Amino acid sequence: MNSPDLILRPIGRVESPVTDPSTAARQRDEGAPDCWLAFEPDVRDALDGLRSGDDIVVVTWLHLADRTVLQVHPRGDTSRPMRGVFATRSQHRPNPLGIHQVAVLAVEDLRVRVQGLEAVDGTPIIDVKSALEPLGQR
Amino acid sequence: MNSPDLILRPIGRVESPVTDPSTAARQRDEGAPDCWLAFEPDVRDALDGLRSGDDIVVVTWLHLADRTVLQVHPRGDTSRPMRGVFATRSQHRPNPLGIHQVAVLAVEDLRVRVQGLEAVDGTPIIDVKSALEPLGQR
Repeated sequence: MNSPDLILRPIGRVESPVTDPSTAARQRDEGAPDCWLAFEPDVRDALDGLRSGDDIVVVTWLHLADRTVLQVHPRGDTSRPMRGVFATRSQHRPNPLGIHQVAVLAVEDLRVRVQGLEAVDGTPIIDVKSALEPLGQR
Repeated sequence: MNSPDLILRPIGRVESPVTDPSTAARQRDEGAPDCWLAFEPDVRDALDGLRSGDDIVVVTWLHLADRTVLQVHPRGDTSRPMRGVFATRSQHRPNPLGIHQVAVLAVEDLRVRVQGLEAVDGTPIIDVKSALEPLGQR
């Protein structure tokens, strides 16, 4: 592989009551608690226009993931055959990015409260985009 | 910002008939042409289980984007006021990741043909996930 490495710079962190990764994983099916996105001061201008009620896509860096894993049992169910991680939503994968579509509940300067983001406290935030249309319908 | 940098490793490249970025941007509204995802041999095992008909989320590195841009005119329309890039889908942003939900048309060893991915030829691929449910409905 002769491509140069690409460097991400965290733009903030998730502040969540969830600190145990196993709890976070289980809550994927049960609804994650509301949490804060706390942004770095130097991306303040990029937040302009975000409003309560917006649907956004948040990209996180799943810092607890194992980047060497290429296959998993789907949803950790060992009765199911191993499968390539690109055919799953496993956190373990060569570039451990999390993609979360969530609703904005409040915007307070550099802090944005969102509904139901499934990530542990301290997870780095990489990007935020408008979800202009429901992604599933494109 | 005292976070360590996070390093991405490209897992493949987009092979598309679109080579002009301005064309790719325009086609966002008009439907992008089908293209190939060409993966690196060392992620072969991670592709296991991908099938024609699957809906997947592809994450790309928008290598032509300007990472210093924090505000843009939405959709390039200078009659609209500037807005923070996190409230838009602009390619220009601090960490220029593209997120594309697309349908798999064919899988041929390390090459996966997909419908309607809006990226220029040569764009690095960073991640692929199953779109188990329509993202817009979560």
